[in-house]
Amino acid sequence: MKFVRYSAGGHASYGILDGDTVHEISGPPTGRYTETGASAPLSSVQLLAPIIPGDVYAMAVNFKSHTGGAPAPTQPEPFLKPASSICGPDSTITLPGNAGKVDEEGEMVVVIGRRMRNVSAEDALSYVLGYTIGHDISAREWQAGDTSWWRAKGADSFSPIGPFIETDYDPHKKNIVVTIDGEEVQNCNTDEMIFNTQECLSFISQTNTLEPGDIVFTGTSGVTSRLRAGDNLVTTIEGLGELRNTVSD
Amino acid sequence: MKFVRYSAGGHASYGILDGDTVHEISGPPTGRYTETGASAPLSSVQLLAPIIPGDVYAMAVNFKSHTGGAPAPTQPEPFLKPASSICGPDSTITLPGNAGKVDEEGEMVVVIGRRMRNVSAEDALSYVLGYTIGHDISAREWQAGDTSWWRAKGADSFSPIGPFIETDYDPHKKNIVVTIDGEEVQNCNTDEMIFNTQECLSFISQTNTLEPGDIVFTGTSGVTSRLRAGDNLVTTIEGLGELRNTVSD
Repeated sequence: MKFVRYSAGGHASYGILDGDTVHEISGPPTGRYTETGASAPLSSVQLLAPIIPGDVYAMAVNFKSHTGGAPAPTQPEPFLKPASSICGPDSTITLPGNAGKVDEEGEMVVVIGRRMRNVSAEDALSYVLGYTIGHDISAREWQAGDTSWWRAKGADSFSPIGPFIETDYDPHKKNIVVTIDGEEVQNCNTDEMIFNTQECLSFISQTNTLEPGDIVFTGTSGVTSRLRAGDNLVTTIEGLGELRNTVSD
Repeated sequence: MKFVRYSAGGHASYGILDGDTVHEISGPPTGRYTETGASAPLSSVQLLAPIIPGDVYAMAVNFKSHTGGAPAPTQPEPFLKPASSICGPDSTITLPGNAGKVDEEGEMVVVIGRRMRNVSAEDALSYVLGYTIGHDISAREWQAGDTSWWRAKGADSFSPIGPFIETDYDPHKKNIVVTIDGEEVQNCNTDEMIFNTQECLSFISQTNTLEPGDIVFTGTSGVTSRLRAGDNLVTTIEGLGELRNTVSD
């Protein structure tokens, strides 16, 4: 099943995407909901971030190709992004004026479905609502110079997610392709992760409770590319569609 | 005015504290609310964290006495804590089994009242709902060894706040005293901050929007002390009461 959130007629709703039709539901897919009976063509609505998360985790250096030659980490290395940085598909990534080099990172994102505390890797995926695509936008000078990554990875518009949450999905062996203006800049497979999805979720849950609607960016691969005003950034993941964002200054 | 959140009869409510009486209100103090007419003696209710925050910021090295001899930072240095780490007054701080040395940090905490984006320091305090006390519990080995502080400062129970939010308050020139089992372990004044409250809020808001209910821990002073199971940790700030937590393993 594909869950979306969308704006139509100035009103934001959650919905189920069936083919090219959105069927409105009464509340977020992490809770009890009913179909309201309203529906609309997908082409007539504006998709929003498919979930309004509480806590937002992301995985640092989770692909060997992204370690820059350093040894691979010996444990998952999560970091936090503020919920205020979340935005949706087709929204604009704004480059802060004083940030210097801002890079794209295209990633698979996990949406938690039920409260998760001290869960084994073996059981972890049963706590997942579904999967979507995310751009972990990264201001490299702030990332290097600040004590933490609160703005380097957390400035407004630095965490687009979407277009939908797919619940019927196996996160393994999936290709992730990122393009800027149609030119491929990243290409990897989720099986190249150093710690796979269930290992990352289990590790976080050993100390930090994950709540329904919390999300986890699972990491990026290779060498990332600088974004410039006017760029069209697109990440495609098998079975999850395409996340498209434009860039402005 | 003093806002609280509390549990009575298995039901959680927001309220206004007037002397020793809690008057229930219909919703969080960051929104429109009305008094429901219900009230109860303070002694009959269990106080909870006075707000359920969205994003939680905290300030690193914001007192010269806490820099360990290193030069003072030249800009505010925020970091993020997960909302899942929030707990209330009189709750238990749980020491994770494999965390090693876990320290207390007693701090003033700011609660945002209205959306704050790119606000000057001069105007920043007008966006504040009020102030409370926080314990920024810190696992020092994780803080030193992990890429980020997601669990070092973010494990479950590592962010107690309370007991109430005081709205009629000037955050300057206030003494902060921390004791463990009655012995003073920290003593400072908010005027010793390297970046004062309004400078911290303004700096965050340059890049990261602060929403109503978001909170900011403003930093700790001096040398912090290790917590051990059985400890009673109390932070007192002039005009904000006392935040008391017990420690267990």
